[in-house]
Amino acid sequence: MTQTPTVDAARKDLAAANRILFNQNVVDAFGHVSMRNPTDLSEFLLSRNMAPATVTPGDVLAFDLQGNLLGGGAQKVYMERFIHAAIYAARPDVHSVVHSHASAVVPFTIVKSARLRPVCHMGGFLSGIIPNFEIRDYAGMGSDLLIRDFNLGQHLADALGKNAVVLMRGHGATVTGSSLQQAIFRAVYTQNNAQIQSAAMALGEVTYLSDEEALAADVANTGQIARAWDFWLSQVAP
Amino acid sequence: MTQTPTVDAARKDLAAANRILFNQNVVDAFGHVSMRNPTDLSEFLLSRNMAPATVTPGDVLAFDLQGNLLGGGAQKVYMERFIHAAIYAARPDVHSVVHSHASAVVPFTIVKSARLRPVCHMGGFLSGIIPNFEIRDYAGMGSDLLIRDFNLGQHLADALGKNAVVLMRGHGATVTGSSLQQAIFRAVYTQNNAQIQSAAMALGEVTYLSDEEALAADVANTGQIARAWDFWLSQVAP
Amino acid sequence: MTQTPTVDAARKDLAAANRILFNQNVVDAFGHVSMRNPTDLSEFLLSRNMAPATVTPGDVLAFDLQGNLLGGGAQKVYMERFIHAAIYAARPDVHSVVHSHASAVVPFTIVKSARLRPVCHMGGFLSGIIPNFEIRDYAGMGSDLLIRDFNLGQHLADALGKNAVVLMRGHGATVTGSSLQQAIFRAVYTQNNAQIQSAAMALGEVTYLSDEEALAADVANTGQIARAWDFWLSQVAP
Amino acid sequence: MTQTPTVDAARKDLAAANRILFNQNVVDAFGHVSMRNPTDLSEFLLSRNMAPATVTPGDVLAFDLQGNLLGGGAQKVYMERFIHAAIYAARPDVHSVVHSHASAVVPFTIVKSARLRPVCHMGGFLSGIIPNFEIRDYAGMGSDLLIRDFNLGQHLADALGKNAVVLMRGHGATVTGSSLQQAIFRAVYTQNNAQIQSAAMALGEVTYLSDEEALAADVANTGQIARAWDFWLSQVAP
Repeated sequence: MTQTPTVDAARKDLAAANRILFNQNVVDAFGHVSMRNPTDLSEFLLSRNMAPATVTPGDVLAFDLQGNLLGGGAQKVYMERFIHAAIYAARPDVHSVVHSHASAVVPFTIVKSARLRPVCHMGGFLSGIIPNFEIRDYAGMGSDLLIRDFNLGQHLADALGKNAVVLMRGHGATVTGSSLQQAIFRAVYTQNNAQIQSAAMALGEVTYLSDEEALAADVANTGQIARAWDFWLSQVAP
Repeated sequence: MTQTPTVDAARKDLAAANRILFNQNVVDAFGHVSMRNPTDLSEFLLSRNMAPATVTPGDVLAFDLQGNLLGGGAQKVYMERFIHAAIYAARPDVHSVVHSHASAVVPFTIVKSARLRPVCHMGGFLSGIIPNFEIRDYAGMGSDLLIRDFNLGQHLADALGKNAVVLMRGHGATVTGSSLQQAIFRAVYTQNNAQIQSAAMALGEVTYLSDEEALAADVANTGQIARAWDFWLSQVAP
Repeated sequence: MTQTPTVDAARKDLAAANRILFNQNVVDAFGHVSMRNPTDLSEFLLSRNMAPATVTPGDVLAFDLQGNLLGGGAQKVYMERFIHAAIYAARPDVHSVVHSHASAVVPFTIVKSARLRPVCHMGGFLSGIIPNFEIRDYAGMGSDLLIRDFNLGQHLADALGKNAVVLMRGHGATVTGSSLQQAIFRAVYTQNNAQIQSAAMALGEVTYLSDEEALAADVANTGQIARAWDFWLSQVAP
Repeated sequence: MTQTPTVDAARKDLAAANRILFNQNVVDAFGHVSMRNPTDLSEFLLSRNMAPATVTPGDVLAFDLQGNLLGGGAQKVYMERFIHAAIYAARPDVHSVVHSHASAVVPFTIVKSARLRPVCHMGGFLSGIIPNFEIRDYAGMGSDLLIRDFNLGQHLADALGKNAVVLMRGHGATVTGSSLQQAIFRAVYTQNNAQIQSAAMALGEVTYLSDEEALAADVANTGQIARAWDFWLSQVAP
């Protein structure tokens, strides 16, 4: 999957990605997706503060990797843009970040004994130990759970480490990809994996993918992302 | 969020709120939403007896805080208008009330050991001890569970106390807000929180938001309600 | 609710009822709804063998209370028309019958320890002991579970007794009403009640409606059926 | 149900079947359905590599029973076409194969103690012991779980044996039929049966269909497949 080569094309892809996430039930009126600026890797692109399903290319703004809005303007921005900024700063391999409150995922953020693990090949990117970020460790017992500044963003990026996904206790999940298409794919299948895992845990003891299986499946799936992206795109064509 | 300044605008907003509640799966053919008359705080506005999804501005009637229809007319009114009347009478800070039988919430009204509690920041308004109104305490073992008169409405308002939400055993929930937009927001996320909490309880022991977290999250969310309202409104435009 | 006075109007209502049951997720490609002929109580009206969502007034046929097709013709008829015939024969108060495989209801037909009971006022018609028909008692261990003849229909009608609903083990449910509108209403809320009860049982010990509450709620709901019917009808207008 | 007599008609039916599987929530952007070439039983028809919902008759390719693309061309093909090839090679009675990751079915592939069994007459084709294919037995602990070659396809076909369905651990299910219509019918009701069984197992001890009941129900259902197919087809008409 080649990176989108112009900012104009990137804005168009990012607007479509917002609509896809709503159509796929990953975001509702809240949540956001960003991508690294393909023409300047020290910037990232993110919509102004609005519901994802309604984002158009003209709503996409540029930020530096500290989360500062570039180019001025008085647009209202997402408070939690620091999630994106800190991850791009810490992870040069990440080119896209999705943050959501996906309903099937949240239970895994609030039940310590239930770890989100890959249950089928589509969830292969969930290999290793998916971390669950506890904001109380950094913001105390009385925070609003939001990543309100770059410092909290850095703690979240630290928790993410080299994983594809970081859960956020009582909040949601943040999913990364080496491309916009991969981040969307993983956001959709994080929710799908969580649904299946919840249902399976209710039935009895679960056989999870081995780490080797998960890694191999992730490689295989990555070769098939275009099939999903092209289809999802066709479903949200304006 | 400024209050709607004219009754005509309020009727229009209230009709849209009805459609939003259906679109968001909070109400079906039953349930209702009211708002305090922005030009006369001793009155409230509520549709005539009909399915919420079909309410138009012309269907909106005015009632006094005892639940009496104002301005005459022979329209059929909701039997349970006393839910709204008694809460407006008891709670000057409340400017909107949603009553529903939201399916994901009802289980929490009939299982004494399962208390509805905030599981993520979107449910921050569920701080404290959300009460569960037991109509048997006031109407005996043989009632039809409906709030048929102002006296029962007062008992429900007493149970609500200073909370945002009161559950109703074997019936549903009544959700309040300081604005129409806040009441709708809370009605949607009461259901969302209940779904997530049910799924989480099936997985294991749940970490709930602390009261400090819930209160802080409620303040933060209240600043973002317009984003949700504007989006939901766009989805139900006539 | 007055009975539809002409056969033509009844055919039109029955076609709409078929579409409503599909729209409300009670039936899929299978299931059927009948009504007693309002102009001849010794007959009932039922579609020819087809998917409910596609029934038109012209597809509605008349049968006698033994399940024989009246008026000749070579149309393919539902094998299980005897469900309807035997219930009309046994229950003069019944004017409409819905048979479905509603997914949320089937679990209650196959788990002996889980009895379908009214959990909220909308399910008040589920008062008493809702029977679960075991076809093995009449057709042995090797039947296809279908009510293939009038004799099996009579056994089912016996199991129904004076109740509103009879479950059918490994099959579905049959729901009755004193009008088409009431049968549709009850079919929708049988599924709704089953969904809520399943979710509640997973949370802990459930407080069910008392029989007095259920009966009182059924009376109250029956006065509100037109609201639901009119709305559901508006959703399936051709 | 007579077999489609021309390749052109078969391509058209197969494209419709793809759309039906998406519409019925059996496949998402992944999964595929094939049919034996009605004019040459040593070939089968399968779409090129694309999302099922978007398949048109022109996208349908022909393969031999080793999984080789016939007639040349540079189209991208499904990696897992060997599922289909090996089953057609092993089972002359099979004329259609559906492979999916249906979400309600996957839990039964990863919980050894929970066997998928027929819970109602619609799932009668699940009689006997539905096998669960463990790819680790043939590809070791580090595979990507995909049926990447004919040899793995043969092992899967061996596991299937004479059953209608074979589950695949951590992957999904493969469903067969003696006609395209029967395979689609069974794919839809495999998911339906899994949903009902999961819900029932949460309620308590389940009474399953006896093998005699399941077999009898499968015969009865097979006589009704046209009703479902015609309806599902009408829902996905281009």
